[in-house]
Amino acid sequence: MRNIRLLIEYDGTNYQGWQVQKKGPTIQGVIEEMLSLLTGEVIHLVGSGRTDAGAHAFGQVAHFKTENQRDVASLRRALNSLLPSDMVIRKAEEVEQDFHARKQSKSKVYEYRILNRDFRSPFQRQYAWHLPQRLDLREMKRAGRILVGEHDFSSFRSTGSLTRTAVRRVLRADWTAGRDGLIRFEIEASGFLKQMVRAIVGTLVEVGRGKLSVEEFQGILDAKDRKKAGPTAPARGLFLKEVKY
Amino acid sequence: MRNIRLLIEYDGTNYQGWQVQKKGPTIQGVIEEMLSLLTGEVIHLVGSGRTDAGAHAFGQVAHFKTENQRDVASLRRALNSLLPSDMVIRKAEEVEQDFHARKQSKSKVYEYRILNRDFRSPFQRQYAWHLPQRLDLREMKRAGRILVGEHDFSSFRSTGSLTRTAVRRVLRADWTAGRDGLIRFEIEASGFLKQMVRAIVGTLVEVGRGKLSVEEFQGILDAKDRKKAGPTAPARGLFLKEVKY
Repeated sequence: MRNIRLLIEYDGTNYQGWQVQKKGPTIQGVIEEMLSLLTGEVIHLVGSGRTDAGAHAFGQVAHFKTENQRDVASLRRALNSLLPSDMVIRKAEEVEQDFHARKQSKSKVYEYRILNRDFRSPFQRQYAWHLPQRLDLREMKRAGRILVGEHDFSSFRSTGSLTRTAVRRVLRADWTAGRDGLIRFEIEASGFLKQMVRAIVGTLVEVGRGKLSVEEFQGILDAKDRKKAGPTAPARGLFLKEVKY
Repeated sequence: MRNIRLLIEYDGTNYQGWQVQKKGPTIQGVIEEMLSLLTGEVIHLVGSGRTDAGAHAFGQVAHFKTENQRDVASLRRALNSLLPSDMVIRKAEEVEQDFHARKQSKSKVYEYRILNRDFRSPFQRQYAWHLPQRLDLREMKRAGRILVGEHDFSSFRSTGSLTRTAVRRVLRADWTAGRDGLIRFEIEASGFLKQMVRAIVGTLVEVGRGKLSVEEFQGILDAKDRKKAGPTAPARGLFLKEVKY
């Protein structure tokens, strides 16, 4: 049995997220189907974690087991030629038997993009949250830094989340302003709760708008209560950038 | 009668180009329709020139005449709220009666994007020409420089073109390599023939592939014969960046 690791980039606009479910097509579902077609086996693809419906990835990692002996370069080419144009396998490599995409991930990096200018962008309409009002980036940076360290992130988890502990370690969290009004929030953590990045971004935007002070943001983190935080930012601005092992 | 000038950005993926025609929706057609709805007049929108089906614009310029007295800021907001999300009015301003978007343009700047890496990009699939083979950018830059100056561009015009003279003045033409395998060709000229940029890029790519030498590229320009040039690059990589007056 071989263990193959994939590095996957996708535009999530037309999918119901990573994980297979009944409502519609998913990234995992499409890739599993094509891998099964290529190998003649029932392939189960294990991702590093879910991504939300409409969210994107530059570097999702997944692994699967197969008896197929095709070399990985050829497998990758064949798979890419079968996959729709909104997803691509960047890398395929054979790894040790015990490599596990979810259990062994050390940290993940997410990027969230906001288009902060008075008119929308035809090119960013599926890849950023458009906010025309002025945002105070300095205050958003200050509040973002509060997240660094080990905290209970109950205030920033989806109400439907089932995970036991909400404690995660954030390694870095920062905003940068780019050209053309695009501002980016990059956050690296040991792990993320369901919709955690989107809840954090939605709340940091309240800080940027002056509706919450940095001290109030600190209070929300400390409260460990989802009801205290701001709205959940839309999925289309969210990118899974990297999974580290 | 007021004369209003618009600066327009659009993702051309879902349109049959700028100019109104029978085959399907066009940028001009959609904006004219919404302007007519807003003003209650039959509006004729005059663009700086056509763009091809599937090609994009960061800075198309157009003007129209109206009796409507609404201020331009409010007109722009109302228009943007009616337009589909793949187009936006960046600016609207009242200009002198004799301003004409096509007749008075001094030069135009086009950008063409090539994704030059071995795997495609889900995010660039409608905004770049994906070429996996290695391109010699140095040779492409050398050949591109030949275009600068006043020349007869008959070798790089669409066979269906009806314009009388093929003489145009190219002010600059250069390639730059960006991150993630994206290379950009930027060309500014006094005017462009139908499909001229796409024919030039298709031929410069032949130089980059080593199929044509820089001297042969010079020979193609001198031949004034479309049959000598390379293939026409796909429209999806083409952006009208700026129109100068």
